Amino acid sequence: MYTPFVNNNTNPALLYHQTHQGKLGVVSLNGHLTKDTLPLAYTPGVADPSREIATDKKLAYDLTLKGRTIAVISDGSAVLGLGNIGAEAALPVMEGKALLIKQFGGVDAFPLVIDTQDPDEIIKFVRQVAPTFAGVNLEDIAAPKCFYIETALQDIGIPVFHDDQHGTAIVVRAALINAAKVVNKPYSSLKVVVIGAGAAGLSVAKFLLHSSGPVSDIILVDSQGTIVSGRSNLNTFKESFAEISNRRNIDGSAADAVVDADVVIGVSRPGTITSEMVVSMSHNPIVFALANPTPEIMPDEAYAVGAKVVATGRSDFPNQINNVLAFPGIFKAVVAHKLTVITDEMKIAASNAIAGLVPNPTESEIIPSVFLPNLAEEVSRVVCTTPHVGDN
Amino acid sequence: MYTPFVNNNTNPALLYHQTHQGKLGVVSLNGHLTKDTLPLAYTPGVADPSREIATDKKLAYDLTLKGRTIAVISDGSAVLGLGNIGAEAALPVMEGKALLIKQFGGVDAFPLVIDTQDPDEIIKFVRQVAPTFAGVNLEDIAAPKCFYIETALQDIGIPVFHDDQHGTAIVVRAALINAAKVVNKPYSSLKVVVIGAGAAGLSVAKFLLHSSGPVSDIILVDSQGTIVSGRSNLNTFKESFAEISNRRNIDGSAADAVVDADVVIGVSRPGTITSEMVVSMSHNPIVFALANPTPEIMPDEAYAVGAKVVATGRSDFPNQINNVLAFPGIFKAVVAHKLTVITDEMKIAASNAIAGLVPNPTESEIIPSVFLPNLAEEVSRVVCTTPHVGDN
Repeated sequence: MYTPFVNNNTNPALLYHQTHQGKLGVVSLNGHLTKDTLPLAYTPGVADPSREIATDKKLAYDLTLKGRTIAVISDGSAVLGLGNIGAEAALPVMEGKALLIKQFGGVDAFPLVIDTQDPDEIIKFVRQVAPTFAGVNLEDIAAPKCFYIETALQDIGIPVFHDDQHGTAIVVRAALINAAKVVNKPYSSLKVVVIGAGAAGLSVAKFLLHSSGPVSDIILVDSQGTIVSGRSNLNTFKESFAEISNRRNIDGSAADAVVDADVVIGVSRPGTITSEMVVSMSHNPIVFALANPTPEIMPDEAYAVGAKVVATGRSDFPNQINNVLAFPGIFKAVVAHKLTVITDEMKIAASNAIAGLVPNPTESEIIPSVFLPNLAEEVSRVVCTTPHVGDN
Repeated sequence: MYTPFVNNNTNPALLYHQTHQGKLGVVSLNGHLTKDTLPLAYTPGVADPSREIATDKKLAYDLTLKGRTIAVISDGSAVLGLGNIGAEAALPVMEGKALLIKQFGGVDAFPLVIDTQDPDEIIKFVRQVAPTFAGVNLEDIAAPKCFYIETALQDIGIPVFHDDQHGTAIVVRAALINAAKVVNKPYSSLKVVVIGAGAAGLSVAKFLLHSSGPVSDIILVDSQGTIVSGRSNLNTFKESFAEISNRRNIDGSAADAVVDADVVIGVSRPGTITSEMVVSMSHNPIVFALANPTPEIMPDEAYAVGAKVVATGRSDFPNQINNVLAFPGIFKAVVAHKLTVITDEMKIAASNAIAGLVPNPTESEIIPSVFLPNLAEEVSRVVCTTPHVGDN
């Protein structure tokens, strides 16, 4: 016999999730079915849209939820700060992500947590479920397999976007453009150190280096030290990044890498950025300490030793770097234009647009609030007007 | 550049599907996210339900949409009367099915159409996606692979219910119980012929023969003739059914089989039940002509040659045999009790309950209306009170 979960404490997050069994429900868009509408929504009328789509698959965008719905897919292998907690335990996060896409982007989304952590099985699953959706948001899938999975899925006919990589990269770049203005340094001259070489770190570093108007110099650091050509124990993704970064071939620790740097970006864990490291940086240091919920260094500590601009992932400090600034607008564009891929040019346009929404950046405002009206509309607009081919 | 679909005609079913791009949307159950609730629904608060579920997977029923959501899964291989039209074209039907589960059962449901028709791949897909859902409705998957697929999925920890088989069987049995009363014949003495040996036909025949208080005699007929032991070209499912049915070993056509029968049930295609066949039946023949949208024989034609009770799948004739009488209540029970399987005893209880909702059956009312209030509640109640083990 089933025993209902009893939440004996008053934890507001548990209560929030328990009240309705989760957060996301499904509804009829055409009201209650009646004797008149039931034969339209289901047999026999439903045969008509099915017949139309059978003659041209693309009509599924117009006649079904495919045209406005995103899948949020995770294997639960790298959830927030919780690690590999598996499919069921990842579901609250994925359901939340789907809600954010809905609220901020006006785009329907549905979570799917899956009981496999094998990269090739995940690839096959996403390919198989693709006919149902306009796009896929991959979420909380461990590095380095996330790179392999996302790359393999770029040809499936709908966009597959790994938000931990690209959402983070888009927003970090936007914040960095504005932070550079605050400290009066040309963005293209910045020397940047990224600490943490998981999904977010590697993607942020690649995006800052590749995107139009790249930063001057970038060094990526993992738990073993700087990513440098010739270092042993590099996976193929880090190895190929070593070849295009760390131009001064610094072979050492994070502390070695940040000496004279203009920017340090932590996407790792608490404690990996120290006061001493900030002191060793160039003048007016920019510190993005993005570990959640506890940053690599607390803002007051960084400011105390001379940091000029500090950003975190938290809403209780200024300058919250939050992926929700990017992904709802991205998916809004996906469904508006029935995109087949999300190109680097689109990501750059999104990043520039987010930066541009703070016309006069200051130390305490380098990035817009996630509640800024029309944020997603603006991101969607610039993505949609980026030249591209191959819409559905 | 995307060109929107232009529906130049005034087909109401197409308009119904086009207005909102399909029929089903997702919504927040806790209202609009604010600065206060965003940290509960997503990071950092969402880590709390995730941590709870990581310690006990079953808490996903209480803290996520898993506890109240059913997947409607199809490969599009046998859609309504349309045949193998593939995943995208099947989506209007699956989206409609999800809506029916929602409206009539009060249970959230989401459609997933998949780009594989390989039985083992379908099995793997359903296993992989199972952590997201409280149950699975398989739909419009071709026979005989549907039998193999559903059987293989009975151990995955959540119920997997192929409605084309069991929903049909439950409702046909309910209608037949009441039709027998109308013609004053004991149900257990009925001689029954089922024409059509696909998912519905084989399942109906097995259910009438196996369920508590079976009919007396049953013969199943496919496009080649009666299913009889020793016939060549029988698949394994028909072969094993031949061994337990057709006790008089009639080896011939549908017309041969129905001579002196009390009941003929068509789940095949228009024209497979003729006036001559009805004439050859026992007194007060019962004719269920369930092909959609055109029945095997039209009711007026059947009545004209002596049929006493006629049922079809259509809402514009009396006695509509419609699966929606069964599956919403079944899934209501699944989420209410977090069932792991749907047993034959539960299906029998559901069938008896549906029959019992017409206390005084007549020729033109052997089955309740799909709009009967409390129908799903009653089906759910009897399923939930059927003895069972292994709830989640």
